[in-house]
Parts: sequence; structure tokens; C-alpha cells
Amino acid sequence: MEKYESQVYQHGTLGMLVPGLFEGTLTVAELLEHGELGIGTASGLDGEMVLLDHTPYLVQSTGEVRILKPEEKVPFATVHFEQAKDTFTASALTQKQLGEQILANYPYKNLFFAVKITGRFSKVKTRAVEKQTRPYKTLTQVADEQALFDAEAITGTVIGYFAPEMFQGMAAAGYHLHFLADDKSMGGHLLDFELDQATVQLQPFATIEQHFPMADQEFLEKDLAIADLHAQIKQAEGQN
Amino acid sequence: MEKYESQVYQHGTLGMLVPGLFEGTLTVAELLEHGELGIGTASGLDGEMVLLDHTPYLVQSTGEVRILKPEEKVPFATVHFEQAKDTFTASALTQKQLGEQILANYPYKNLFFAVKITGRFSKVKTRAVEKQTRPYKTLTQVADEQALFDAEAITGTVIGYFAPEMFQGMAAAGYHLHFLADDKSMGGHLLDFELDQATVQLQPFATIEQHFPMADQEFLEKDLAIADLHAQIKQAEGQN
Repeated sequence: MEKYESQVYQHGTLGMLVPGLFEGTLTVAELLEHGELGIGTASGLDGEMVLLDHTPYLVQSTGEVRILKPEEKVPFATVHFEQAKDTFTASALTQKQLGEQILANYPYKNLFFAVKITGRFSKVKTRAVEKQTRPYKTLTQVADEQALFDAEAITGTVIGYFAPEMFQGMAAAGYHLHFLADDKSMGGHLLDFELDQATVQLQPFATIEQHFPMADQEFLEKDLAIADLHAQIKQAEGQN
Repeated sequence: MEKYESQVYQHGTLGMLVPGLFEGTLTVAELLEHGELGIGTASGLDGEMVLLDHTPYLVQSTGEVRILKPEEKVPFATVHFEQAKDTFTASALTQKQLGEQILANYPYKNLFFAVKITGRFSKVKTRAVEKQTRPYKTLTQVADEQALFDAEAITGTVIGYFAPEMFQGMAAAGYHLHFLADDKSMGGHLLDFELDQATVQLQPFATIEQHFPMADQEFLEKDLAIADLHAQIKQAEGQN
């Protein structure tokens, strides 16, 4: 009977972003109390956050990468402290192939788990959403305005999560991965990659701690019972 | 800016029960470390658990109420420590009316919150599921085999939770309430009540801690990506 138990912390839900709740509701300082690795976005849906080594990098739609300040706020982020359970090396695999291989080899399909991949990639394709101003659009409208980035022969880190189908809404069901190049020249929300040679680490979670912005009036009042919520998440996250 | 923050703990998910994952996976002793009030079921889907004053009562399908032993296991339970935020008195209301009144008067529709009602009820209608043996049926098949109980002019406590629509699957969206009579003569999963005079307490949660039975092979292997999961939950829980 194993007693390996680690946990992941999430502030906000992906579903909250669908109708346009983009305003930050938790400071980066508070977020970093709950993890050293993770993903998220900044206030106004300003780009794609990649938390590595307890440093909150933000890949903006201009392509620039900056570090979020402790007092800046995030509307949605998922973070954890590293305690990898499984490590393996992989070579010559697409994002889809690696994702399928993980689910075939590890009994994690009904769990939340973190994926961290460090190494060389022959191709990486990412996107970064553009910072929005009020009145906020919906997530699917914003996803149409994303900036796309491509790189070849690049070293970097993939970080993100797998969520079981049942949790679509709270999270994006399936894999939700971000990327950051070692030299910070490129990154964002992963649309596709081909890894050349990399180390893959998996961390299944016994517990997910879901935190809500319960002092935020706009969140409390928003209609989140959206009939096609799941379809809108799939569209916005580039799921198929 | 309020800093009222309490949390609720859930072991297992309601969605896990749908395809018949009824075996207990967490001891009552471990569960009680996370709360003194709550609801759940016992191993084999043996009745309806009502946790009051840190005492885990089990309303069985025979109508008998017994106290679960610390070493017994639960497949699904939701518990919290009491820290009520809102208290009001209510009189002459049906379950549906009270539920609507709470959502109309308090900004909690997008949060998990606990509901505790103590007082006199002119009518109470409950059900208790029958203990199952392997091979387990599905939740909707078992719900058809439930025992029904009716009481009039009874004093007791309602305890349970509201979950936002987005969390259907992890929990039962909407209200999920259990009842126990003061004299332990009657209780179970609430199908309907008419309260005469009662005190209602609400406790909104900033955080829900969702815990998975990650050492349980049967859970890890089960196909939980069920196309009509939401419909099956609504049917089994008596939602409309």
C-alpha cells in the first residue's frame, strides 16, 4: 500500500475564463506559496504563464518573456511543488504520441498529474493570448486573436497537467501544457511539439486543492452555467 | 476585502459511483481528520452517512441507524469543520423554496457551500440505498432499489452541500442534502421536506480539497469517461 501523496493547487477555474472573467484575483506572491512549478495566465488574460524554479515567467503575445511581479494578480493558475514519481527518457516523439504513451504505460487516466519535459525539441509550436481590456470578450473570441510561435531545434522545458475527463470545466480535460525555451527566446501554450531527446517526469496527485476568488463580486455574479461550456473549452484550448 | 476562508474536503467523486466503484477506499478515522460535519456513504454503498458532531451516523436501507467504526471505509464522502458565515431562521418552506431562497439572497451560486438546518419539520421524505455486493451494479440501477422513508412532525438536522453546475461529476451539481432525526429514528438522502421552524446556517468555501483513492487499482483502471455521466447523476440523485 503506497503512501506517496502530493497535491496540486489551482486558483480559479478554466470555466471562469470562458465568459470573460479575465481579471486577476490572486497575487503572484500568494500563488507561489502553493507551488514552484505550474502554468496560468496573467490579469487581462495577458499571455501564458510558465512557472519554473519558483519563477513566474510570462510569455506575452508580442513574443517577449517577462517575470511577473509578486503584487501582480492572476485569474487562473495551477501550481505544485515538485515531487516526481516517474522519470523516463523519450526520443523522437510528437506531443500526441508522448501523451498517448504516458496513458498507456502509467495508470493515471483517472488522476490529475503533472508532466515536466526537459530536453531538445526538433519542433515546437505555441500560442500566446493577447492582453485584453474591458469590456472583456469571451475566451473563444480571444483564442481567435492569439499570436502563434514556431521554433526548430530548441532546448527548453514543458510543464503542465493532465486532468481526467470528469473535470472538464474546472480544468481543461486531457493535457494542458506550456513551454519555455532555456534561453527564454520562445514559449507559450503548447499546440504541438516533436521532441528529439528529453527527460519526462510525471507526478500524480492524490489531492487537488481548488481555490475560488470568493471575495470577487464579478466572479460571484457571473453566469457560469453555460450550456456548451465543454465545447467552448475544447475550442479555446486547441483540443480535438 | 474579506479574509473569511474555510475549506471542504471530499474523498472520491460522485462520478466514481456511477459505474459502480462502491468499495470503501478511505477509513472513517482518516476522513474524520478532515471534518466534523458532512455526508457520504459506506463501503458497498451501504446506506447514507450523516456526519454530525464528529459522529458518523449511517442510515441503512432497513431504516436502522448505526455509527460507523473508525476502521470502516468509505468510497465517497464530503466533510468540513464548522465555521458558519450566515445564520437565519426560516419557517413554512419546502426544500425547493428554501434552496431557491438561499440562492436569491446570498451570492453563492458559483461556490461550494454547506447547508445546515436544525429544527422542526412538518414533513421529511428520504431514501437510503441498499448495501451492494460484488459484482457491483451501476449507481442508477442501485438507486432504483432504494428504501423510502417518510416522517411527519419531526425534529432533526439537515446537513449537506451545494455545488456549482460546472462541478457536476466531481459532485452532484446543486444541493445534495442528508437528514437525521434528533432521536435517530429516521434519516437518509433527502428527497423532500417541509420545514416548520428551523435555523439555517450557510458556510461558503474558498477551497475544495478533492482527494482521490490513488492506491486503489480498481479506481485507477475503471472507465470513468462516461458519455451520459451527468444525466446518470441527475437520475440517481433525484435531481430534475
